[in-house]
Amino acid sequence: MSHRVAIVGASGYTGGEALRLLANHPSVEVVAATSREYAGKPVSAVHLHLRSVLGSMKFSELNLEKIVSEAELVYLSVPSGVSQGMVRRILEAGLRVLDLSPDFRLKEPRLYEEWYGFTHRDPELLAESIYGLPEIHREEIRRARLVACPGCNATAAILALAPVAREGLIDLDHVAVDVKVGSSEAGRQPDQGTHHPERANVIRPYEAAGHRHVAEVEQELSLLCGRRVRVAMVPHAVGNVRGALATAHVWLTDTLDETTVWRAYAKHYGREPFIRIVRAGPVKYPDPKYIIGSNFCDVGFAVEPSRGRAALFAAIDNLMKGAAGQAVQCMNIMLGLDEREGLNYFPVSPV
Amino acid sequence: MSHRVAIVGASGYTGGEALRLLANHPSVEVVAATSREYAGKPVSAVHLHLRSVLGSMKFSELNLEKIVSEAELVYLSVPSGVSQGMVRRILEAGLRVLDLSPDFRLKEPRLYEEWYGFTHRDPELLAESIYGLPEIHREEIRRARLVACPGCNATAAILALAPVAREGLIDLDHVAVDVKVGSSEAGRQPDQGTHHPERANVIRPYEAAGHRHVAEVEQELSLLCGRRVRVAMVPHAVGNVRGALATAHVWLTDTLDETTVWRAYAKHYGREPFIRIVRAGPVKYPDPKYIIGSNFCDVGFAVEPSRGRAALFAAIDNLMKGAAGQAVQCMNIMLGLDEREGLNYFPVSPV
Amino acid sequence: MSHRVAIVGASGYTGGEALRLLANHPSVEVVAATSREYAGKPVSAVHLHLRSVLGSMKFSELNLEKIVSEAELVYLSVPSGVSQGMVRRILEAGLRVLDLSPDFRLKEPRLYEEWYGFTHRDPELLAESIYGLPEIHREEIRRARLVACPGCNATAAILALAPVAREGLIDLDHVAVDVKVGSSEAGRQPDQGTHHPERANVIRPYEAAGHRHVAEVEQELSLLCGRRVRVAMVPHAVGNVRGALATAHVWLTDTLDETTVWRAYAKHYGREPFIRIVRAGPVKYPDPKYIIGSNFCDVGFAVEPSRGRAALFAAIDNLMKGAAGQAVQCMNIMLGLDEREGLNYFPVSPV
Amino acid sequence: MSHRVAIVGASGYTGGEALRLLANHPSVEVVAATSREYAGKPVSAVHLHLRSVLGSMKFSELNLEKIVSEAELVYLSVPSGVSQGMVRRILEAGLRVLDLSPDFRLKEPRLYEEWYGFTHRDPELLAESIYGLPEIHREEIRRARLVACPGCNATAAILALAPVAREGLIDLDHVAVDVKVGSSEAGRQPDQGTHHPERANVIRPYEAAGHRHVAEVEQELSLLCGRRVRVAMVPHAVGNVRGALATAHVWLTDTLDETTVWRAYAKHYGREPFIRIVRAGPVKYPDPKYIIGSNFCDVGFAVEPSRGRAALFAAIDNLMKGAAGQAVQCMNIMLGLDEREGLNYFPVSPV
Repeated sequence: MSHRVAIVGASGYTGGEALRLLANHPSVEVVAATSREYAGKPVSAVHLHLRSVLGSMKFSELNLEKIVSEAELVYLSVPSGVSQGMVRRILEAGLRVLDLSPDFRLKEPRLYEEWYGFTHRDPELLAESIYGLPEIHREEIRRARLVACPGCNATAAILALAPVAREGLIDLDHVAVDVKVGSSEAGRQPDQGTHHPERANVIRPYEAAGHRHVAEVEQELSLLCGRRVRVAMVPHAVGNVRGALATAHVWLTDTLDETTVWRAYAKHYGREPFIRIVRAGPVKYPDPKYIIGSNFCDVGFAVEPSRGRAALFAAIDNLMKGAAGQAVQCMNIMLGLDEREGLNYFPVSPV
Repeated sequence: MSHRVAIVGASGYTGGEALRLLANHPSVEVVAATSREYAGKPVSAVHLHLRSVLGSMKFSELNLEKIVSEAELVYLSVPSGVSQGMVRRILEAGLRVLDLSPDFRLKEPRLYEEWYGFTHRDPELLAESIYGLPEIHREEIRRARLVACPGCNATAAILALAPVAREGLIDLDHVAVDVKVGSSEAGRQPDQGTHHPERANVIRPYEAAGHRHVAEVEQELSLLCGRRVRVAMVPHAVGNVRGALATAHVWLTDTLDETTVWRAYAKHYGREPFIRIVRAGPVKYPDPKYIIGSNFCDVGFAVEPSRGRAALFAAIDNLMKGAAGQAVQCMNIMLGLDEREGLNYFPVSPV
Repeated sequence: MSHRVAIVGASGYTGGEALRLLANHPSVEVVAATSREYAGKPVSAVHLHLRSVLGSMKFSELNLEKIVSEAELVYLSVPSGVSQGMVRRILEAGLRVLDLSPDFRLKEPRLYEEWYGFTHRDPELLAESIYGLPEIHREEIRRARLVACPGCNATAAILALAPVAREGLIDLDHVAVDVKVGSSEAGRQPDQGTHHPERANVIRPYEAAGHRHVAEVEQELSLLCGRRVRVAMVPHAVGNVRGALATAHVWLTDTLDETTVWRAYAKHYGREPFIRIVRAGPVKYPDPKYIIGSNFCDVGFAVEPSRGRAALFAAIDNLMKGAAGQAVQCMNIMLGLDEREGLNYFPVSPV
Repeated sequence: MSHRVAIVGASGYTGGEALRLLANHPSVEVVAATSREYAGKPVSAVHLHLRSVLGSMKFSELNLEKIVSEAELVYLSVPSGVSQGMVRRILEAGLRVLDLSPDFRLKEPRLYEEWYGFTHRDPELLAESIYGLPEIHREEIRRARLVACPGCNATAAILALAPVAREGLIDLDHVAVDVKVGSSEAGRQPDQGTHHPERANVIRPYEAAGHRHVAEVEQELSLLCGRRVRVAMVPHAVGNVRGALATAHVWLTDTLDETTVWRAYAKHYGREPFIRIVRAGPVKYPDPKYIIGSNFCDVGFAVEPSRGRAALFAAIDNLMKGAAGQAVQCMNIMLGLDEREGLNYFPVSPV
């Protein structure tokens, strides 16, 4: 028996990736894929790679009444600020929601003013919303009506830091997270900065002070550590289309070796279906190169005891574990399915 | 019930792609993956993307006796000149063979002297071998003991040309095939020409007179057309890792329009599970960009009646429809399985 | 003593490249760089690479009266259809013009209707205009008031074909030109097709029937050969930012070997300052990889006597020999300077 | 009058870049370019981009006696450990040396044991050697016989940090330097890790604990600050061929704003011919994209007073300001020439 899901905002990259996954998911049926811009057009006229595989599926106009009458679960893949006005209606109709936008990630309403520049329109729901990182909130996701899927840079940053932060191995006052990410993160809308001649071959810092994902990284680490944690975070655009790597530069609270750090990762991630701990081999540290197309997150680390420091790494495919893949993982948990269902893709490599 | 298959030469890119597909194939079990260089090492120490997904599978030494006692079908992913010395032994033990090397592609023994510079060691088997292009030889593949999988540039060239050539629409004395292909085609062995700083951003013709795939393209087109066909073929290395596009420049035998050409494609490919005919949309012609990770071949064309010419296109992922994916497709046919089994991957895009 | 030049339309890639060259040219002073969109802004706010090297140069509004009073030579780097309305005024004021747009490339007015879809507004000037390819029209350029700089794909196509066409070595009824070109060719204006995630890693045919550069290629080859020549030409977008390669697939009029073809190139290009004939070495054929940043055009060829065919290659940097570099070369000729002045850049490699 | 220079080890990328610059330098003549591997072969058979521009220059065997009799200044572009055995002989003959290897960068002999694993063979010369970063050691370079050119990652790291470190603006106990660098840094020798399919599209940390450039960064910062400074440094290979960006994550000693930090940069770099301070514009921070082919270093920064932190950036072309370009800059200083002579290249962009 199939679960009926709808995707609101299906013409972007995250929506397209959700379609790629859900159209092939054995327990799910996509009953609607909406797009304001492309309503009425075949999905494959926008997502050219999906030509012939979606039958005659067309984008539809967003019609919440129709969606709540047809679906049981809704993916919201809409710009920041949009889903806060939709979620209550969907939940009240008895559906469950996976929000891929930032609107329900932060628990404190005032943070939306600080980081996003708007007053949240439905602050009560923030208390109910669950941050959709299964490695940290699996049990809450199982019971959630509303799951707020993490940002891709935040996913990588948190997964790199969580085990050692939680175990008290690092100086929480000096945490620097340096992220490198491909161009698909910025979405499907062209502008001067994403024009190919301008965007190819960049190594370009952006939002070097005030990147919005900082808010959720700090929220989750503070929660894990039971104290306020602040991070220095700088994302960098690099020439890739897909892939993100977070490098956390940390100082250690004690003289530690690699084994202690490894144990922290093994303890927290040893049974995680989508986390692979990289420790040796010809490429010793995580690299998104080996993850493309899959929902894996590779984590790894380097410890330099003589300098009392370590580097912690997490590599993801930003459209998979950083967006649509993680949403499907959360959906599987919510629906009581095998967490891996419909996500059984080995990475495509070399690519 | 699983079919037991072995992969000889599993450490290269084609072998790795075969492993990616077969390890996830519902009706197949990989009983051996051999590698002279890496025997005894975990498969995931070479194919880093397959970390954690193959359990503890290790490369083994090539031991034909062991393989014929354990497997029922063997993939040979070995360099040119090697499989001709192995196939007879495997067939005699009652197994079936998918040879990914060029050793059994050409029917006339003297062509190996002309194009490959060696005297074939088992010319009798050439008569039995079937050229593994399902769109042309499906029925013969079904009954074959020995299938010779086409080269990637040849696959693209033949699939672009076959319908119009067979239908007599083009001047067979003036066929120019211009191929562009990514770096993974050249395999896993590094050399000066594949060193990243040298190979990145190239637009580089190679084997501009005498490319070996010409032999199989001419063989298959001649067979289809019932006369000797010769092609002018120039492959070009471009900066991609994956993907190949064949552009065939042809002149028409009559005043034709797009519809006539389209009908030829529709007639021959209309029911093909892995061929998509591209005719319209924001990107009007095939581009391997929209195929990566999948077994699709996108074909398309442009007709210029005023100049009596046309351009015919075929785009593939060179490691999939150009190598391992096509081999799995052939295997499915040989084993009486659904042709799409284990190949149900939608392309990863954008990437 | 410096020659005073103005650049109309200096904010695009061709304009930026012209600025890079002219600002460093020992005999030239840039007196105006106009841009409708960026008038009043520093040039370096658009051309970020030129930060600090142009002093405080600002873009100005286009004011033809001011330009004719200050400059002696004008570069027009404007969209198709614009310069035809400006040139007469500039010439009448006694200035000379290098038009980088297509408006004065074709000699027959009706071709503008056929290929560009407009009726030319100043057809008389077409007769006077000189096609700015020094290797063919050097003497006429010297005396010209109006030089129409060739398109980049046309430059590569003509330079690959001219010597063998002129010498009567090829069948002029079957000439196929397959061009591969980087993204900077399409200019500075972003759209969906040039959005980095969409444009990266493409191997994408475009204008496969009816590419506008066909008109000028046919014009120049017809002129050279004294008969009407038609070409089958298909440009392909590839993942590079810079660089273009033309591959001409031709059939030979006689049994020829490499030496005959080489002699044709040597005869026509032996003394050309910017053409290098590539014949041997680890990379046997031209590749734009080794030309980036310079005004060189590398030509080369492969001959297959047994099939009576050859492939002819020309590689350029599309913004240099394909646009601004060639314009500066023409300017040097017009001004009686050393043809190499201000163009003494060795290619940047590897890049 | 030309200065006679020799390049020892001219077949690598740094040697090739030195040749590109010196062959075009108005005050220099290259009297020898040595290569063990390619002795006797034309330089252009290895450096294909230099075809036709170096006349018939051939690589020669290394013959120190011949070199000291012909040249007055020698570039050593040899692997680590080699130049320590050559320099004394060259200096004693009265020549001056620019060593591009790490052999004379560190002042304390024991650091070679710690970081490079060898006992230095000429420790006395370490005292005399000058670290070839003109922005810090210009006056000493002027009088030096032996200049040790910095590593490329070290150049970017030091130039990003020097002004704020020297001015006491940052917590010197928590300095993390995250470097991203293109593939040309690793040199011309192919191996598995640099094979194009493996190296393309990587975001790959390497030497995450113990990168050798740490030693020179710490040496120079300690010297500048008058106390021992230690840095946490992680280089990352990214998909570019050229370009390096250093991002230094630092914490501030006081509540600072952007202006204070800007003043430190302006004070130290305001008159530097090759440093550009990036502070505004459509791309607000340095990006090597806008530097390729030139000797510029773009520096910039982001200050987040609320978190007491800043990010400091420096972008270079690793073969120019990170290697050969910086060596030519040092040479100009040593020879009393204009520091910009032969380095007057504007960046090539877009590329």
